[in-house]
Amino acid sequence: MAASSRRQFLGAGLALTLARSRAGAAKQGYTHAEVEKLLASGNLNGRVAKDDLCTPALVVDLDRFESNLTKMAGYVRQRGRGLRPHAKTHKCPAIAQAQVKAGASGVCTAKISEAEVFAEQGIRGLLITTAVVGRHKIQRAMRLAAVAPDTIFVVDNEENARDLSEAAEAAKAHLNVAIDILHGRTGIPAGEPAIELAQKIAKMPRLKLRGLQAYSGAASHTISFEKRREFSRNAMAGSIETRRRIEAAGIEAPLLSAGSTGTYNIDTEIDGITELQPGSYVFMDVDYIRIGGQTGDKYHDFASSLTVLTTVVSRPEPKKAIVDAGLKAFSTDKPFPPEARDLAGIAYAFAGDEHGKLDFSQAERELKVGDRLEFVIPHCDPTVNLYDRLYGVRGERVEKVWKIAARGMSQ
Amino acid sequence: MAASSRRQFLGAGLALTLARSRAGAAKQGYTHAEVEKLLASGNLNGRVAKDDLCTPALVVDLDRFESNLTKMAGYVRQRGRGLRPHAKTHKCPAIAQAQVKAGASGVCTAKISEAEVFAEQGIRGLLITTAVVGRHKIQRAMRLAAVAPDTIFVVDNEENARDLSEAAEAAKAHLNVAIDILHGRTGIPAGEPAIELAQKIAKMPRLKLRGLQAYSGAASHTISFEKRREFSRNAMAGSIETRRRIEAAGIEAPLLSAGSTGTYNIDTEIDGITELQPGSYVFMDVDYIRIGGQTGDKYHDFASSLTVLTTVVSRPEPKKAIVDAGLKAFSTDKPFPPEARDLAGIAYAFAGDEHGKLDFSQAERELKVGDRLEFVIPHCDPTVNLYDRLYGVRGERVEKVWKIAARGMSQ
Repeated sequence: MAASSRRQFLGAGLALTLARSRAGAAKQGYTHAEVEKLLASGNLNGRVAKDDLCTPALVVDLDRFESNLTKMAGYVRQRGRGLRPHAKTHKCPAIAQAQVKAGASGVCTAKISEAEVFAEQGIRGLLITTAVVGRHKIQRAMRLAAVAPDTIFVVDNEENARDLSEAAEAAKAHLNVAIDILHGRTGIPAGEPAIELAQKIAKMPRLKLRGLQAYSGAASHTISFEKRREFSRNAMAGSIETRRRIEAAGIEAPLLSAGSTGTYNIDTEIDGITELQPGSYVFMDVDYIRIGGQTGDKYHDFASSLTVLTTVVSRPEPKKAIVDAGLKAFSTDKPFPPEARDLAGIAYAFAGDEHGKLDFSQAERELKVGDRLEFVIPHCDPTVNLYDRLYGVRGERVEKVWKIAARGMSQ
Repeated sequence: MAASSRRQFLGAGLALTLARSRAGAAKQGYTHAEVEKLLASGNLNGRVAKDDLCTPALVVDLDRFESNLTKMAGYVRQRGRGLRPHAKTHKCPAIAQAQVKAGASGVCTAKISEAEVFAEQGIRGLLITTAVVGRHKIQRAMRLAAVAPDTIFVVDNEENARDLSEAAEAAKAHLNVAIDILHGRTGIPAGEPAIELAQKIAKMPRLKLRGLQAYSGAASHTISFEKRREFSRNAMAGSIETRRRIEAAGIEAPLLSAGSTGTYNIDTEIDGITELQPGSYVFMDVDYIRIGGQTGDKYHDFASSLTVLTTVVSRPEPKKAIVDAGLKAFSTDKPFPPEARDLAGIAYAFAGDEHGKLDFSQAERELKVGDRLEFVIPHCDPTVNLYDRLYGVRGERVEKVWKIAARGMSQ
């Protein structure tokens, strides 16, 4: 069976390409150098196929991605909340621009170095979700605020607030801050401690309190919709009450930024949460699919759009195949492995830095050297952080190449 | 106590700097922008301190690193074996150059894209330890071989050998190949299968068989020296016998590349192994320290030189501190966490993409926001792959900034 008819047989959009590319064999298609030139030009016009990509490659299905973008933006807008998606998931200025175009007020970034990348690409409405600590990072914050004055910095203690205030005073600038409320990681406890901090900040003339950040990672990943709703309602109650009391004390605090991909349809029902900062919804991952939906034990509110494309490079044992993607190609922080898309019965196990070992004894066909398989990744954010490029595909064609410009920006 | 006298009190080389940098406070030292300019110039002359680095930062202690480099090179040379260190560990052309200067014949790379980076920087004697599969990667291999003709490509099946042979024929070039022997991951079984493949390769006029690759990842990490020695001797026996029989059949196979950081003093005692390809010895990690030495239950043949420098960014609960390094700053593939250097009684736990949570209830002092701590990493290779720069420090001064030029080159 010829490669093209076999592909038709297997159906369009099927990731597993069984056709092996023999080096000497005549084959339609561009050379590697030509593909690189086309990718660099950005002028693809359907000329580059997914099969032309060297693996491992990080791939996003654009139909699914775009539907995720639209769905989240529409849902949140309809419920009258703001949307400031977390860009630590994708680290792509091009995606941040698409999110803003779809209705987001800006994006969150995890760290100052990540924010700098987005600001440089013209993104505004930045909220940096980790406190900026230390002399040099505060210098960077001041430079960033000069370029993007609406940037919001979180604080969870008086000394850091004072450091920011003094730096702003020295620069004759103003900084927007939000108080980070403790939900198991960083932050100051809701209630009296946070209210006291708000009162201190209100007396620092160079700082403008914008409100609170109340992100609960535990809520976002609580398994089952009912438990997640209960968890998030309980978790958010303290922050909501804290903001009410701060405002009752005459201090403006218009912002309560919370919410996540897992709680988008929970937190938008809670009065007092003013905006959501979901990240993973653009891509999804094995981890999020497992939390369960409002109906059903899988969470499919958003489509799984992100995969790593791999190639079988060795067939060392019966019913075993080695692919070229290992610890450097997938996140490894979850207790479950990557999941093969479009071919059932494949079990992936990590086999070192560069390889994965597949057991295909339960699959309906043999795997051969040269076969290409796509895997849904355990955890999207740390996986994206391994790659420099994200290939946007529609069906079997590569339509976009996005630079993961903030990759590695953990500072 | 002033910052400088406190540092003296704690001793030179102590990583924990308790001095907080207040933004407004007068302090000696360069601004962030000045530091970046100095780092970019490469002309440091002791002007940049470790304390000037924004965290998380990947740091190598140059005294330890250099002693590792010298020790491995000297040990292997004295025993009459070749040394081709695995560059997938460091991904730094500057380190490969230092290894060659210390006596290595070249370096191994895991993938073709990694090899391209080192070739471009003038490194020769490359051995690519994963088979190059697929039309586009074979095109890349041909281009690489044109630039660096002594590059060795591994093969483990006839079809891939034939693909390489046809590509070489089309280019009127010759390619060096080594047969990859199965040790639990990629490769062809030792004995008859490998000998038959050697005989087939010998009949492909464009391929030059250089010998065998017999890397056993399981041997390298077997805990306890005695068990490791037994494991490696058993594992290597088949490859050694295979090479003997290939040569007995009149086919030259001068190379048997094996060995690792864990077996350097085992495999150099085994007749028939011609060269070692250790990687981790330059840096070491928690994983390798646990395998045990020839004496003692810790493996300290090479010094632990690599750390991630972090900063405490939040103190949310009693005896708990949050540092700015999480899943994107450390490898997460091992079941044990990063280990604090220079301060006992700190327990690190991952707290999401961007943070780690420290329990310092067993430590002899409190941690404060702004404190800086260094951590030995669980697994060096995938951690290095997260960073763009490696800072070489001597004592408290930054002496080198190495570009991790092959970072992300998993293709």
